Amino acid sequence: MMKKAVVLLSGGIDSTVTAFLARKDIGKKGELYALTFRYGQLHSREISCAIQQSLTLGVKKHIVLPVALDMIGGSSLVGKGDIPTGERGQAMVQTFGIAYGPSKNANEIPSTWVPQRNAIFLAIGFGYAEVVGADLVYAGLNVIDYSGYPDCRPEFVEQLQRALNLASKQFVETGKGIGIVTPLSRRSKADIVKLGLDLGVDFSRTTSCYQGREKACGVCDSCRIRLKAFEEIGIFDSVEYEEVE
Amino acid sequence: MMKKAVVLLSGGIDSTVTAFLARKDIGKKGELYALTFRYGQLHSREISCAIQQSLTLGVKKHIVLPVALDMIGGSSLVGKGDIPTGERGQAMVQTFGIAYGPSKNANEIPSTWVPQRNAIFLAIGFGYAEVVGADLVYAGLNVIDYSGYPDCRPEFVEQLQRALNLASKQFVETGKGIGIVTPLSRRSKADIVKLGLDLGVDFSRTTSCYQGREKACGVCDSCRIRLKAFEEIGIFDSVEYEEVE
Repeated sequence: MMKKAVVLLSGGIDSTVTAFLARKDIGKKGELYALTFRYGQLHSREISCAIQQSLTLGVKKHIVLPVALDMIGGSSLVGKGDIPTGERGQAMVQTFGIAYGPSKNANEIPSTWVPQRNAIFLAIGFGYAEVVGADLVYAGLNVIDYSGYPDCRPEFVEQLQRALNLASKQFVETGKGIGIVTPLSRRSKADIVKLGLDLGVDFSRTTSCYQGREKACGVCDSCRIRLKAFEEIGIFDSVEYEEVE
Repeated sequence: MMKKAVVLLSGGIDSTVTAFLARKDIGKKGELYALTFRYGQLHSREISCAIQQSLTLGVKKHIVLPVALDMIGGSSLVGKGDIPTGERGQAMVQTFGIAYGPSKNANEIPSTWVPQRNAIFLAIGFGYAEVVGADLVYAGLNVIDYSGYPDCRPEFVEQLQRALNLASKQFVETGKGIGIVTPLSRRSKADIVKLGLDLGVDFSRTTSCYQGREKACGVCDSCRIRLKAFEEIGIFDSVEYEEVE
């Protein structure tokens, strides 16, 4: 039977590697559906990366879906307040590791947090899976080298999957649920990049910077996590960065 | 302390009565935030009803948020296929009552079902509540006189609330969760209309018809449920209906 999957593809490292894994899982003949959100993010240039990756992946359909989360605000990522930056190259010890582990240091949730973003995106992905008849929704959520967002945690994903299946026509009709797959959940960013290289990902066509300027800033949380990963595995990041004085 | 609540306000009967209940709960001085979605619905004229009701309710802010669910399709409500109609005035025995009760007759989910609509809207409402510091999200979900949608069931709402709190900054930071309130969940449409009349709702400024034409069709599921309710309680529905031959 034809395998079908939906992948949430932002154009960043994690979602791109996840999309390549999904393609590997469902095979060349499987139908892959990509879903990208235009949600008012400053770094909307990631969308063009997502489109380029979709072409490489040979997706059946790629939807770039507007959802105006910037109207709600509450996040520096959609234009409220400054994107937090640190010194370039500085290890992100405060961000790495603390996550939502045992210590649960909640004050670490940074201003780039977009309230309920993953719940909203996963719910739309679920709806799309229902429409195309896919069993799985792939998403690049990650709890290791991420920016301290509670909606990346596996406990949340598990509960959300349960909730969305209760609201799913497919589940109600057939008893067969849709699954959320987060294959990178517990991998470090360096591991993810290595995995991506093995899968043939062109990382020059991924964007990580939160600022959304022409070149990556190199100093926002997301740039720093990316740079550290490339440094760790000793390869050159071909994305262009702004000059630092 | 100032009471704050978010209400999902579509401009239909249930959400409007729910908004009036929310206003009553939080008092005249409480801050009510209304959220309406422009999701590609054919019946987008409901949005102007929502705006009128918001003005009457004296909301602190009303956001009409675009989310392009029509790009995903899968529903006659966003332009795929015909809106199902029956004979005007005919009792909706097939729709009423079957719901998702014990018999779980899943084949009754009609083409107007928009996959995961309530999950998506409630997740956005939760995010908005987080931004404005509200404890409660009111929604007019109803399992009695509705059109057989699985995402109106209390089990779903309960499970979704659990999931969204796990992804909530407020919950993680303070341990204090946000609640989803569905005060009309188990009331019949006639009951809801009666309640609304007591609360001073102007029902001529609510829309129910799925078709989105100038006048209500009187024959789609939603019109029929509405008409039956007004008939039951013996009052005149001042919304304009198309002439039936």
